[in-house]
Amino acid sequence: MDITTLFKLSSGLYIISAKDNERNAGCVVNTVVQTTAKPVTLSVCINKDNYTNACIKKTKEFAVSILSEQIKETTIGVFGFNSSLEKDKFAEVQYRLTPSGIPYLTEGVTGFIQCKVINFVDNYTHTIFIAEVQEAENITGEKPMTYEYYHKVIKGKAPQKASTYIEEKQETEIAGGSYKCGICGYEYPGSKEEFEKLPDDYKCPICTVAKSMFK
Amino acid sequence: MDITTLFKLSSGLYIISAKDNERNAGCVVNTVVQTTAKPVTLSVCINKDNYTNACIKKTKEFAVSILSEQIKETTIGVFGFNSSLEKDKFAEVQYRLTPSGIPYLTEGVTGFIQCKVINFVDNYTHTIFIAEVQEAENITGEKPMTYEYYHKVIKGKAPQKASTYIEEKQETEIAGGSYKCGICGYEYPGSKEEFEKLPDDYKCPICTVAKSMFK
Repeated sequence: MDITTLFKLSSGLYIISAKDNERNAGCVVNTVVQTTAKPVTLSVCINKDNYTNACIKKTKEFAVSILSEQIKETTIGVFGFNSSLEKDKFAEVQYRLTPSGIPYLTEGVTGFIQCKVINFVDNYTHTIFIAEVQEAENITGEKPMTYEYYHKVIKGKAPQKASTYIEEKQETEIAGGSYKCGICGYEYPGSKEEFEKLPDDYKCPICTVAKSMFK
Repeated sequence: MDITTLFKLSSGLYIISAKDNERNAGCVVNTVVQTTAKPVTLSVCINKDNYTNACIKKTKEFAVSILSEQIKETTIGVFGFNSSLEKDKFAEVQYRLTPSGIPYLTEGVTGFIQCKVINFVDNYTHTIFIAEVQEAENITGEKPMTYEYYHKVIKGKAPQKASTYIEEKQETEIAGGSYKCGICGYEYPGSKEEFEKLPDDYKCPICTVAKSMFK
């Protein structure tokens, strides 16, 4: 099997959010797909280790923030490489609440969708949630961020919990060697020499860990 | 609900194929998504009225041809707007067989994936199939066709059975008036006057129906 063929499946990039009492949860996925037109339903696949997954199972509700090409890399870093159990991710972004009180982003986002879960399926490491769309609204006219754009232009990587995660060894074989963040896999765009000359307080622009975490 | 927000969900375009004894079946979808990394699984959502759906339920196997930007419009027309029960769609394209005998396209395609169904979920008009990837191979280096490219550059429309289908009335309100194919919704790019001057044997470049089917 040539794993690079799977990279040719096109997708967007989204933040899925939910609410557990007072605690807001959210994570980054690339797995939202419209599944029927009448009624309008969609599916989304989320890792079982994500706290957002547990919140959705409990509340049966979630929101989809459709990321645009203007999304800040640090927002993807905060939502993609941290746990909502340890960090209030929404404290670091601009957001509003859906009618039922679920937070969704309003900056670097082109639209939001509010969903009610009607079914879910267990699939190895992930859960596939199927939901009816209750509300959908355009926020900006910005271009939706595609996963391809995230990889090629932003040089972002998939978190370990993502359905499209590939192991570092495989990835190095594909990408060739250079300084990379040990947490999120962000590849420094300059040479090794340039990276080594960066100040000691340099932080990963994606997941904000220290320079020493690069290898 | 603003239905145009749903258009912002990014996706690719695929031909899903299956086999029922000697009969080959195939249809166009935009609903393939990788669902886990280990093992590699994916999901695909297919209308229950598609013959391909029945074949997959019977044989538990299918192939995904990942369409590239070089795919002929007529191939999308043949696979998207006809039934495999009435037409041998593969008679009109170049194809090969997977090890288990399922046909996949080799022209206008950037890769293929062979899948074994492990679960399926009923969802209103559609079935969501979850499958383990058995084989994946790059066919060309051509760019994958995105649904956005299909809509914007090729001016293609969603078949009535698609999960992203929107009714003609809604669509006209969004697109404004001009000559459109009554079967596949292809919008003639020129003016009404230019369309009316076309020869009587003009055919829809997408689904090949006669000029008289335009309205």
